Amino acid sequence: MEEVLIKEDHKYVEVADRIERLIENGALKVGNKLLSVRALSKEQGISVSTAFQAYYQLESKGLIEARPQSGYYVKFSPLHVLDLPKVSSPVNDAVPVSVDEMIDSVYSDLNNEKLIHFSLGVPSISLLPVARLNKSLLHVTRDSKSSCLNYEHVQGNASLRRQIARQAFNWGGTPSEEEVVVTAGCVEALSLCIKAITKPGDAVAIESPTYFAIFQVLESHGLKVVEIPTDPLTGIDLAYLEKAIPRFDVKACLFVTNFNNPLGSCIPDEKKKQLVEMLAKKEIPLIEDDIYGEMYFGKTRPKTCKTYDKKGLVLYCSSFSKTLAPGYRIGWTIPGRFKEKIIQLKRMHTVSTNTLTQAAIAHFLENGRFELHLRHLRKALHTQSLRYIQAVCEYFPEDTRMTRPQGGFALWIEMNPRVDAYKLHKKALKQTIGIAPGQIFSSQARFSNCFRMSYGEPWSDRIEQGIKTLGKLIVQSM
Amino acid sequence: MEEVLIKEDHKYVEVADRIERLIENGALKVGNKLLSVRALSKEQGISVSTAFQAYYQLESKGLIEARPQSGYYVKFSPLHVLDLPKVSSPVNDAVPVSVDEMIDSVYSDLNNEKLIHFSLGVPSISLLPVARLNKSLLHVTRDSKSSCLNYEHVQGNASLRRQIARQAFNWGGTPSEEEVVVTAGCVEALSLCIKAITKPGDAVAIESPTYFAIFQVLESHGLKVVEIPTDPLTGIDLAYLEKAIPRFDVKACLFVTNFNNPLGSCIPDEKKKQLVEMLAKKEIPLIEDDIYGEMYFGKTRPKTCKTYDKKGLVLYCSSFSKTLAPGYRIGWTIPGRFKEKIIQLKRMHTVSTNTLTQAAIAHFLENGRFELHLRHLRKALHTQSLRYIQAVCEYFPEDTRMTRPQGGFALWIEMNPRVDAYKLHKKALKQTIGIAPGQIFSSQARFSNCFRMSYGEPWSDRIEQGIKTLGKLIVQSM
Repeated sequence: MEEVLIKEDHKYVEVADRIERLIENGALKVGNKLLSVRALSKEQGISVSTAFQAYYQLESKGLIEARPQSGYYVKFSPLHVLDLPKVSSPVNDAVPVSVDEMIDSVYSDLNNEKLIHFSLGVPSISLLPVARLNKSLLHVTRDSKSSCLNYEHVQGNASLRRQIARQAFNWGGTPSEEEVVVTAGCVEALSLCIKAITKPGDAVAIESPTYFAIFQVLESHGLKVVEIPTDPLTGIDLAYLEKAIPRFDVKACLFVTNFNNPLGSCIPDEKKKQLVEMLAKKEIPLIEDDIYGEMYFGKTRPKTCKTYDKKGLVLYCSSFSKTLAPGYRIGWTIPGRFKEKIIQLKRMHTVSTNTLTQAAIAHFLENGRFELHLRHLRKALHTQSLRYIQAVCEYFPEDTRMTRPQGGFALWIEMNPRVDAYKLHKKALKQTIGIAPGQIFSSQARFSNCFRMSYGEPWSDRIEQGIKTLGKLIVQSM
Repeated sequence: MEEVLIKEDHKYVEVADRIERLIENGALKVGNKLLSVRALSKEQGISVSTAFQAYYQLESKGLIEARPQSGYYVKFSPLHVLDLPKVSSPVNDAVPVSVDEMIDSVYSDLNNEKLIHFSLGVPSISLLPVARLNKSLLHVTRDSKSSCLNYEHVQGNASLRRQIARQAFNWGGTPSEEEVVVTAGCVEALSLCIKAITKPGDAVAIESPTYFAIFQVLESHGLKVVEIPTDPLTGIDLAYLEKAIPRFDVKACLFVTNFNNPLGSCIPDEKKKQLVEMLAKKEIPLIEDDIYGEMYFGKTRPKTCKTYDKKGLVLYCSSFSKTLAPGYRIGWTIPGRFKEKIIQLKRMHTVSTNTLTQAAIAHFLENGRFELHLRHLRKALHTQSLRYIQAVCEYFPEDTRMTRPQGGFALWIEMNPRVDAYKLHKKALKQTIGIAPGQIFSSQARFSNCFRMSYGEPWSDRIEQGIKTLGKLIVQSM
């Protein structure tokens, strides 16, 4: 009896060893799903508990990971880890921002199918519920008396606002549908919120690096930006912000609190609470861009600053552009005490939002399809992120630094200081590869040796070749 | 032989007299179609030429009118004509505009089906090609690789821009598709154009009265408005404008050149040319809102200021909201020399316009359905305008003044000075009637004894009752 036990004991070690070698030699890659415990036991002629022990050993070694309700996956191997990028250290002088022509160069070829679009922070269409959405579309054109040709109410489709309010439950929010204002995507939401709470010449605190549309839209409103140092893991430096507020007479903040773009940093919930409380004391409004919040890879959705907002000072903004339908241009804001002003501004600037796509998304959500879709999308993005990370580790020079996002769509890659990312973008474009150079994520064209790489496109040989080619171009540029 | 001729002669006089009496006693109403010449000849047992003579006599008397390719219609009878409203005489002091809460009151009940919406300047859904548009929608979701879920190019769908460029032929324009920028409705086009050519504090010349969104959007950009006196027939007073430009340091103009809202005035083409030339000399850009241009009741489409623009100083704006699909939120601008700036601003503020509804409208236009639809729509609106006018003449007090629009959607009604239009709006709302009080068409809440009445809804007993009730309410208010 004891011998049998020992044999079985050896057996699980032996099975685990073999799997480990498969991972080492690359036959099993990061993100690959392993057989289920039951299937492994059958295949190897071992008991279920032995199979479980084998996986347990691999898990203890950090080689594989169990994902709830899904099974075992090859984990990102710590042997290959590149260093994290450094915390940004912007030099602040509350300068007026300036728009960059580089953006034109990066995004002029938006719909060119020949390009590998590492530059686009959106999910691949193949990850979206196209057929189901089309069904919703068909349904609402048939169901609506006016086939959705009439103007929608300025504040937005009532059913959609109800669904958005329900969705807020995920992050601990309890808004009523009356508190929600629908917009043409998140950027319009941000633009309206900025307009509602600032006047030209005001200073607004933002992350550094930050999504270019954010400082562009601030510039276009005649505002100054104050860039706050931002940790690749935990987001803005609270202590720095607290000092910057009086120093630069900051009138408002605009932060992407979860999986920010391009860093992927996520402000821990406790820190969010501190941020909200600090700003509440000073009566400073916070525009919170939570467009990536639903794209988390961990077990639970991170909270939002709005979750902790007691004074109605947080203007929450998000959209369906990253989760469901970029081209539908539907976003929203929950702007707290600034709601009436926002509605007034929206009536002036766009009258109302697209009736048809509002109704279609409302129908899709009413039928409970959004949660299921989000689960699939999160899983796919998580796996994709791991494959991309592994390839970057494999093909990029060793002195490369890279973020390890726990959600969202993008990697932020810091190269050798001698490499100019904008020149790299130009070279890569000739090889049909699009990247978003670091310069476009700062109003002062800093981050010249960084770039953002989106992993929204599912893994393929073409993607792998693209990353390999990029690696070679970087080496050539050093 | 001669006697027979005389008899026939009497015959046509007699037939014409009988028709005239039917018109007088209201059995035939303004806008009613008469029998064709051939049908009349059969019905009355007279020759075709006699029938023709009868109609000719009625036409000479101004009682009926021939419409090309359509037949004879009861014409607006000059006996019932109300006076035209007076030319506006705004007092100018280049004051900053202020937003009015009255607008909220007027447009809060937008989708209330119980209301008679005289307040809405849109065509009834029943006048729109709903089934055909739905077909186009279905087609593009099937035909597009991504089911129109992807982001569209910032400048807009290429096929749609091509169609818009072709459509410009109607007003003598020859833009290429490269000169067109698609926007989320005309209001976004206006907002982008204003942003592109002004800076806060600048003065902009507008018509008086004018559509409230125009001065609201100007206010929200921190601009001052200079109201130019506007003739109900021929639009802005050119001589006044020429003096106002140096006096108020006007930096830009924003005019609705064809069938303006709410006056319905149309600047004669020759005057448009003079306006463009005058502004060109002074290098002052003109934002031209031509959203009603296609809704003409005469034989030919009026030209636009853009037609005469040699220096790229005219920023032409329009949309499909009044002709095809209000809820689709698709408009455009042809902004001349300001194109690059407009595209840059659009990327910042909304990223891109709805992919799906752009594609659907492009498909609808490609199939040549737009022209046919426009012909039907113009005819319907013309007839409706005549019925509404007649009813106002019939039910409103005699001292009422009213415009006689040659296109567009609205009547501008000037009441006895003792009547307050905003109070009338409140009273009318209780009787389920919505009107747009004159105060909302001026930044200074002038025109308090005027209101705008849209005739977008097809004539019906309900509409007639509504106008009758309004007439009673006006009498009570005097």
